[in-house]
Parts: sequence; structure tokens; C-alpha cells
Amino acid sequence: MNSIEVCLSPALYKYKTTTDNYIVVIIDVLRATTAFCAAFDSGARAVIPVSGLDELLVYKNKGYLTAAERDGKKVDFANFGNSPTVFLNTDLNGKELAYSTTNGTQAVEMAKSSGNIAVAAFVNLKAVSGWLMEQQKNVVILCSGWKNTFSLEDTLCAGALVEILDQSGQFNPICDASGAALVLWQSSKNDIPEVVKNANHYQRLVKLGQLVDLQHCFQINTSEAVPVWNGKAFLNRHPSI
Amino acid sequence: MNSIEVCLSPALYKYKTTTDNYIVVIIDVLRATTAFCAAFDSGARAVIPVSGLDELLVYKNKGYLTAAERDGKKVDFANFGNSPTVFLNTDLNGKELAYSTTNGTQAVEMAKSSGNIAVAAFVNLKAVSGWLMEQQKNVVILCSGWKNTFSLEDTLCAGALVEILDQSGQFNPICDASGAALVLWQSSKNDIPEVVKNANHYQRLVKLGQLVDLQHCFQINTSEAVPVWNGKAFLNRHPSI
Repeated sequence: MNSIEVCLSPALYKYKTTTDNYIVVIIDVLRATTAFCAAFDSGARAVIPVSGLDELLVYKNKGYLTAAERDGKKVDFANFGNSPTVFLNTDLNGKELAYSTTNGTQAVEMAKSSGNIAVAAFVNLKAVSGWLMEQQKNVVILCSGWKNTFSLEDTLCAGALVEILDQSGQFNPICDASGAALVLWQSSKNDIPEVVKNANHYQRLVKLGQLVDLQHCFQINTSEAVPVWNGKAFLNRHPSI
Repeated sequence: MNSIEVCLSPALYKYKTTTDNYIVVIIDVLRATTAFCAAFDSGARAVIPVSGLDELLVYKNKGYLTAAERDGKKVDFANFGNSPTVFLNTDLNGKELAYSTTNGTQAVEMAKSSGNIAVAAFVNLKAVSGWLMEQQKNVVILCSGWKNTFSLEDTLCAGALVEILDQSGQFNPICDASGAALVLWQSSKNDIPEVVKNANHYQRLVKLGQLVDLQHCFQINTSEAVPVWNGKAFLNRHPSI
């Protein structure tokens, strides 16, 4: 039996108790991990997470496509912001995309030392959970949150993933946060559109006019993508783990 | 209208967004804040939070009563451990108690800079919420957790406090964590004894044989105490804020 642990914020990642044989599953529903899935659904070959905008500019000058968002808004020099629906409407076949976001790439930086990272969102719950069941490893779910605070939408998605993994009989939730995320998900799942309207990040994106993205980010299992870290970039269902 | 913000772990306290005119309400249900209430119920004049055991020994040598717990167990040289039921069965009339615990006093250290600190647990929910309603200040609820990780029992108690303050019409929850704590509490409150049996800290204390304490810590409104910080110690309903 493998364990499931949930970190409700990047600031709690260093206090996780799982230490051996684990995959970190990063969740940033609004919108980085949903957008990663969308990029692969549109044919991207790789998504390279980049922390700083200076580094991203280096990638741009080398000819990479770039995506960058700060505080919910597209960064001027980048080709794309953080919108999954823009990626879905763009042919990215074979392209490599350098990508920097407020919260998502911070979580990736943090998880790199584990060696094993995958990416989850509501859109790829079935795909990523099926892939996790094949890996025979412990799972640490890392909610990206908003600037290190707790985010409702990431926690609900974590709870949905805990539910699927727990019900498989192959995984055992080991921390209070995984149980709490599960209860939150189960008490909300029949009314997600209403529940998430109260979330701070949802309201932030409404103010930025991102309603189409918001609707997309809470759709479940519309993507078959499983972005997996290969040491340098995310590839779709990369088999090296 | 005053705001309510919830920090689900001491590690998240530095990311709070409330900055003005606030009281920090520390919750450590198992068992520090429940025990603080019990000490006042038994007549204590003051509870002095102390971080380190070296400092606590200085207090002991000066003639203070001392209480200390590490990893759930009483520290040898101290008069008391962290057991609220032991305090309830001891006459502490007029005594000053120097007190050091694994998680609770860490939270106090963190909150000191705010100047305004009160203490909550299930046992004093009505008393502390009534007192908070009189203060006309914003509220930041700080869950002590376990070694910086999320604790179910502290979050449930935070949710119960959010419910009372929210229903008063004087307070407005401003963060996702306050909403999540409220949902967790509302989905659990009719079955708290069963729900908390799954909590890691509950199981830790069961293993240490602390069943009587556990039953006490989940009783609601058995205490009239409102431990309030005066800059040096907690006093019962200290009026200086």
C-alpha cells in the first residue's frame, strides 16, 4: 500500500513526512496545471517551467515559444499568458513552450529535488490518477495556492484525487490534510460551480474577465494529458519514472 | 464590519493579509489552549508562555509552578504536563504558571508582535466569541497544528469560531481557509467524536493513554475562561486590549 500526503500550500511542503519513493503531484487549477494539460492537448512536445522573467526572455531570444503570467495577467513580451483555452485554440504541434507563472512554477522548483513530478488539475483527474496507479510509488500532492496561502480550488482538486486513489485500494491517506481535502471535495462536488465562486482566486479572475477560462478549469476529465517531469521539462506521459 | 482570516498552520502566519487592528486567536485544541482554559477555571492568576525548557527551568528555580510537554509527554522537571483534566483537578487559586508546549507556545511567540492575543478551544467557544464581539477588531485565527503541519482538530475548532462570528453579522470571512474551515466544521459537527478519531494527533494521544483528556478537549462551552495576552502573560479576560 502506498501513502498519500497533501501539502495545502508550498509553504508547508518542507514539513511533509513522506521521504521515500514518492511522486510529487502539483495542482494549480487556476490556471497553470490546467494550462499545461491544454498545451499537451494541442500537441506541445514539452513544457519547460521557468521561474523568473529574465530567464524566460533568454528562452524567447533562443526562439522558444513563451508563456508568462503575473498576478493573473499575461506578461507583455510572452507569446501566451496562462490561459488554457488560448492553448486549446492554438496549434502547438511539436513545439516546446517555456512557461512562467506566479505560483505554479514556484511549486515545480520546490518539487524538483524529489526527481519525480507530475501535474494534475480537474481536467486530467482520470488520466493522472490512472497513471499514478501504474507507478507503485507514494504520492505527495502539492497545492500551489496563491502566494503561499491556501486556495480552495486546489484543495478541492486534491480532495478529488485523494478520493480516486483511496478508492483504488492501492493508496492510504496518511495526514490530516488529505482527509480534510477529501471531506471538502465530497461536501462540494455536486455543486462545484457555486462553491468555487466564493474562492478568492476565482473572484480575482472574474475581475480580469477570464470567465471562459474559469468554466474550462472546473470541467472534469476533458484532457488525456499527464504532464511528467523528465529532469528538464514536462513531457506528456514521460515514461522515465 | 470586521474581517476574519484563518491561518491553518503557524508556517502560514507570515502570509496572512490582515495587517491592521487585529486580534490573533490561537487554537491548540490538543491540548495547550484547552489546558490554558482549564488552568484559569481552577483559579490560576496568570499563564506565562515559555518557548524553551531552559527558560522554563529558570522560572521553576524562581518558585513558579511549571507545565511542559514535548511530543505529547510531560517533561520530567515540570510540575504539570499538558493535561487540562489534571489542571481541572488541581487548586491553582492565585498561582502563576509558566508553560511550554510543542506547538502552542510557538504560536504565541509568532503572534506576540501583533500585541493582541486571545486563546480559543472547543471548551471556551462561546466565551471567547462573546469577548471577540465586544472588541471591535479584525480576527486572525492561528491554528497551532503539529510541528507546522495542518491539524484537523484545530481547523474544526477554527471553523466553529468562524461560524459563530460570521452569524453575528459583525464579521466577514476574507480568505479561502476560513471558508474551508467552516465547511469542514459544518460537515462534521454532528459527529465530532467519530470524525476526530481519524486525526493524527488524536491517535498520537490515544497511544499515550490520554483518553480522558481527549474526551474533555472536544466538549463545547464547558469553560468561561478567555485567556488574553497582557504583553507578558495570559490573564483571564484581561481588559487591556
